[in-house]
Amino acid sequence: MESRHYIRFLFFFVGIATLLAITWNNLPYAPPDATEDFDCTTYSSWCTSKNRFQSKPLKEPAKSTSHHHDHASDTPHHPLDPLTVKEINRVRTILTSHELFKNSFPYAFHSITLQEPKKSLVLNWNKGDSLLPRKASVVARVQNISYVLAVDLTTEEVTVHETDSSSGYPAMTIEDMTSSTWAPLADEEFNRTILERGVDLKDLACLPISLGWYGEKEENRRLIKVQCYSMKDTANFYMRPIEGLTILLDMDTKEVLEITDKGKNIPIPKAVNTDYRYSAQGLHQRMKLINPISLEQPEGPSFVIEDEHLVKWANWEFHLKPDPRAGAIVSQARVRDPDSGEIRNVMYKGFTSELFVPYMDPTDAWYFKTYMDAGEYGFGLQAMPLDPLNDCPRNAHYMDGVFPAADGTPYVRSNMICIFESYAGDIGWRHAESPITGMGIKEVRPKVTLVVGLSGILMVKGTAYENMNQISNQAENLFGTLLSENVIGVIHDHFITFYLDMDIDGSDNSFVKVNIKRQETSPGESPRRSYLKADRNVAKTEKDAQIKLKLYDPAEFHVINPTKKTRVGNPVGYKVVPGGTAASLLDREDPPQKRGAFTNNQIWVTPYNESEQWAGGLFVYQSKGEDTLAVWSDRDRSIENKDIVLWYTLGFHHIPCQEDFPIMPTVSSSFDLKPVNFFESNPILRIPPNVEKDLPVCKAAASA
Amino acid sequence: MESRHYIRFLFFFVGIATLLAITWNNLPYAPPDATEDFDCTTYSSWCTSKNRFQSKPLKEPAKSTSHHHDHASDTPHHPLDPLTVKEINRVRTILTSHELFKNSFPYAFHSITLQEPKKSLVLNWNKGDSLLPRKASVVARVQNISYVLAVDLTTEEVTVHETDSSSGYPAMTIEDMTSSTWAPLADEEFNRTILERGVDLKDLACLPISLGWYGEKEENRRLIKVQCYSMKDTANFYMRPIEGLTILLDMDTKEVLEITDKGKNIPIPKAVNTDYRYSAQGLHQRMKLINPISLEQPEGPSFVIEDEHLVKWANWEFHLKPDPRAGAIVSQARVRDPDSGEIRNVMYKGFTSELFVPYMDPTDAWYFKTYMDAGEYGFGLQAMPLDPLNDCPRNAHYMDGVFPAADGTPYVRSNMICIFESYAGDIGWRHAESPITGMGIKEVRPKVTLVVGLSGILMVKGTAYENMNQISNQAENLFGTLLSENVIGVIHDHFITFYLDMDIDGSDNSFVKVNIKRQETSPGESPRRSYLKADRNVAKTEKDAQIKLKLYDPAEFHVINPTKKTRVGNPVGYKVVPGGTAASLLDREDPPQKRGAFTNNQIWVTPYNESEQWAGGLFVYQSKGEDTLAVWSDRDRSIENKDIVLWYTLGFHHIPCQEDFPIMPTVSSSFDLKPVNFFESNPILRIPPNVEKDLPVCKAAASA
Repeated sequence: MESRHYIRFLFFFVGIATLLAITWNNLPYAPPDATEDFDCTTYSSWCTSKNRFQSKPLKEPAKSTSHHHDHASDTPHHPLDPLTVKEINRVRTILTSHELFKNSFPYAFHSITLQEPKKSLVLNWNKGDSLLPRKASVVARVQNISYVLAVDLTTEEVTVHETDSSSGYPAMTIEDMTSSTWAPLADEEFNRTILERGVDLKDLACLPISLGWYGEKEENRRLIKVQCYSMKDTANFYMRPIEGLTILLDMDTKEVLEITDKGKNIPIPKAVNTDYRYSAQGLHQRMKLINPISLEQPEGPSFVIEDEHLVKWANWEFHLKPDPRAGAIVSQARVRDPDSGEIRNVMYKGFTSELFVPYMDPTDAWYFKTYMDAGEYGFGLQAMPLDPLNDCPRNAHYMDGVFPAADGTPYVRSNMICIFESYAGDIGWRHAESPITGMGIKEVRPKVTLVVGLSGILMVKGTAYENMNQISNQAENLFGTLLSENVIGVIHDHFITFYLDMDIDGSDNSFVKVNIKRQETSPGESPRRSYLKADRNVAKTEKDAQIKLKLYDPAEFHVINPTKKTRVGNPVGYKVVPGGTAASLLDREDPPQKRGAFTNNQIWVTPYNESEQWAGGLFVYQSKGEDTLAVWSDRDRSIENKDIVLWYTLGFHHIPCQEDFPIMPTVSSSFDLKPVNFFESNPILRIPPNVEKDLPVCKAAASA
Repeated sequence: MESRHYIRFLFFFVGIATLLAITWNNLPYAPPDATEDFDCTTYSSWCTSKNRFQSKPLKEPAKSTSHHHDHASDTPHHPLDPLTVKEINRVRTILTSHELFKNSFPYAFHSITLQEPKKSLVLNWNKGDSLLPRKASVVARVQNISYVLAVDLTTEEVTVHETDSSSGYPAMTIEDMTSSTWAPLADEEFNRTILERGVDLKDLACLPISLGWYGEKEENRRLIKVQCYSMKDTANFYMRPIEGLTILLDMDTKEVLEITDKGKNIPIPKAVNTDYRYSAQGLHQRMKLINPISLEQPEGPSFVIEDEHLVKWANWEFHLKPDPRAGAIVSQARVRDPDSGEIRNVMYKGFTSELFVPYMDPTDAWYFKTYMDAGEYGFGLQAMPLDPLNDCPRNAHYMDGVFPAADGTPYVRSNMICIFESYAGDIGWRHAESPITGMGIKEVRPKVTLVVGLSGILMVKGTAYENMNQISNQAENLFGTLLSENVIGVIHDHFITFYLDMDIDGSDNSFVKVNIKRQETSPGESPRRSYLKADRNVAKTEKDAQIKLKLYDPAEFHVINPTKKTRVGNPVGYKVVPGGTAASLLDREDPPQKRGAFTNNQIWVTPYNESEQWAGGLFVYQSKGEDTLAVWSDRDRSIENKDIVLWYTLGFHHIPCQEDFPIMPTVSSSFDLKPVNFFESNPILRIPPNVEKDLPVCKAAASA
């Protein structure tokens, strides 16, 4: 829950990198903060709802190229452009007059997003064509029943699908999360318990925690668990848990169903050394070790963003939009072939489908912490405005998100995504020739990447222990590492599952396992006894493409277009190069693993299906796992020379260490998509080298 | 053989990265090029020896902060400083008057390097102390016998060890490599063969290729194989192999022992599209896609280099020197603890011990290509001068190497290593707070790393095939990928083995496997069925530390100081975080794998032993593998709470693709060394955020 993930679609080696850096600060709860008052007051009712804790305004308002953009007048230009402020308002108007909502109360909109036109229509659409009909896909709860609705913005037609609530609930709204943190304070017993633990109510901070699903007890109503912390004497209340105290709430009635306190004997960790703010560090403690360093592009960035969402960089272009659930969605990634000059399709759609983070502590206050951030909380809803110069470098461009509040009114999530070019001093390719050839040759090319970034802290456990020497049998008792006096960092896993609808030179593709096998030579054949051979195996059906990575039975994984070949006859393709390869080791029958069954393999391939985009299912909250990627894939449909979707899960185990306290450094992990016989030859062969005369002239900032 | 490797000792998260980027352009032959005439004429005899191919001078001489440094007057300041020009000359003077060399001829010096003082003496030495006695370690061949000599520069005492030649030979000298490429031309049959293949002798380029060891036929004399290419109409002769032609040479007598030509039916691939030089690209073909981008530090870099070799950056310091075999050696890496202010030891010595690259083609002209670059050719000897602005960014500092020629005269390898700070726009840590706490907090820290860089091309195979459709059964015939008409990229592996003498707060350390295991819960214990548990297992002996990485039986690998604990009682340590995890799949009894047995495990731990530094053995050339890390480790010595050395092997498989033609983009792979309970808390908590006023003011270059 505390790391910043680098999710990289390496479209070609020099690398156009689409990088989603997601901080779900473990607050799984992140309403737009003080910097967004402007946006809120303009478009949103709920933003103004008083927070029970008085809110100090942010010192420095975020700087952003798009921050002052008035989204009130936005209009869509591309079939995939997200719903605008006007369109969301229109949907709200249409629906509030619809009898489902008109006569009934309470209701809440859990999501209002663009219903993307059929893929075939989008693929045939060209700039200048009239925009395809705009439709909204709406998830709403009315009198505790979940509905999926389609709203045609032109005809005002509304299609309603009631859904079976046994298959889970939609992601929480911000209002769900906010109100859940207040609800316990209406309960006398809760307040008494807090005081008994020595915490003043004004120092209290509580978090809404999704509780997964563990059986009947958790069925047929929307539940949530709340745990609390002391904010006394630190900005970093996460390090001061009121351990063992768990409140079970009905999210709809806000009724406190159960209060368990198994931590009476566990002291609240001290505040000392927990604050991470620079302003809170003693002047003598501050470490000014590094001179200013900056990525500079005096001629400006090399990319342009047309019509708000179409990113064009180098010989690449793709559509980019914020999404409340996925965080960001990349669509129609295409590259202009350096040889033929034609625009070639690579990927129709790519995004983060789900994040599964099971904590490894089976005790009462921890066993249920098995987050699915996209489906339970929403990456986009949790995204905080990016901090220019720090979250993203100086040369970054920022993109805002427009989301609906629970009552359907739109609000702006500013600086939600940033796009920038990155250069770390690495090289794209090089060759230096020796005198033997009679040529004094030294050719080197710099490596520049385009990055798209979207905007932790460790959730710790209180303990009575202050030193390891108090513990006879460590492993049995801790479920993690003693990070500081009375503070334990609990072991957990991270699994990020990506949806990658590859369209290599067209929609119909095949998935090929290129297995690397040892081949023994026959006697007398060679002085060598063995060598490695590459066997190409085309996956016929989904089960052929359920891949568990193996170090000692290695393979490459290609998505190819079997009907298109290079000049010398290789099928054109891209390969997925796995990054973090940790696999889930939980019991397959463990409830969290059933819900997170999409992590049972690192790679899956499914036939394209509009309704199969969320690896954990459309409704993940409290789901039992009946609607996951694992279930779809077991249908074993044919995937050869079809429109296919590649699913890749990046994973790592995290055993916390003291360096993660009181706030942990970023951990990054990534995977690559690389062309494999997609181009006739090195696609960056013809880019120029760096030469002094092109580089900027810089001086220290005036103030320095 | 064609990739640039990123070898990263991540000393802490913000990362001081020591990055060796080794290009052994597959020419395993790289004398200092034209830019170094100055250096050569000054110090070296062999540089001036005429190359049989007339050498055009380089257009742009390399720019370097140290290029014009006159090394003639260098003096050592630190016990680990490399031998200076004066010292190498002194060694030569002492030895040439020594009777072993005085009366006998021929002889050659294969290496003259500093014999490092005993570790204990170096650890006790402090700046200001008188320098420890300077000694040289010399490897020489006299009348075809290998000797290891120690030369005391003060007493002039010379100690001689004759060595058993059956255990392999020293690395080739540059003279060996150069002369071997001429020798065949003295052979009538060779010249006739070349002409028969349609190649004019003036267009001929030949490469000296180490032949490994495959039995008696290759014992008791120094052999080498030579293969040739046509330079006609391209700078990139590597793409024009005279396939199947192999010359077996005696490296000492230069006698041609055997000429085999199994490629008479294989045409030499065409020159078209093979040239990679920017100047050779058609004006309309050049791809100027990116605006200038640069890493700028108007106040200069944050590191200083004292006395030529002592690098000080942030709160880190380490000794850095070029080495003819390892390329670069990092010593005495230490960090100032942000809490206690004390300087703490992390690593005594780290370097690239060997690179093993077996090609996967058992046929006559390819089976023997199983390079060991460090021990056969020498990373340092092959290093080409780095190209400022391209190999390393503008803010880089360059370091020269001083090596001896075969006759013992020193010469300068300029711009051999670069050091620079890198910032890619990434973040070190971040936390954004939500209104719930009543605090508008957004704290982010930039991620800056220090990088040390040291300065390919694909070795391709000719084939009669021009298109895959001519091949009935691909896998059986190709041993790789058809990259272009008549050109095959042969499958191969890369294994880089690192020597890491960790000294965590002192020399006596232990190696701990932290195994991550599934734990099933007992009935009624918890709604969870399972969770993951970390089991700590201290390795008692070497065999306990022979590690094969396993994805489904994962572990962390810590080097700890068992006698030093943190405030809360965790042992202080560092962990190795594996990067490229490919393992060798060759038959353990395959001759190349016996020689490369140090790749049988990804991790090994041995007790510190001065004589065990080169994973493939001291004398790798034509070795049989009797003196590898695998053999030492099988002694199963005790390693608990001892001065231990961690060996890590980074590996990857490479199936070439058309994007690798005619020159392949860099592929990078790295591993990290990260603190684990080494610091009491996040060591970069107190670094400041980026603020606008600190950043430089830049404008486009005047000429732009």
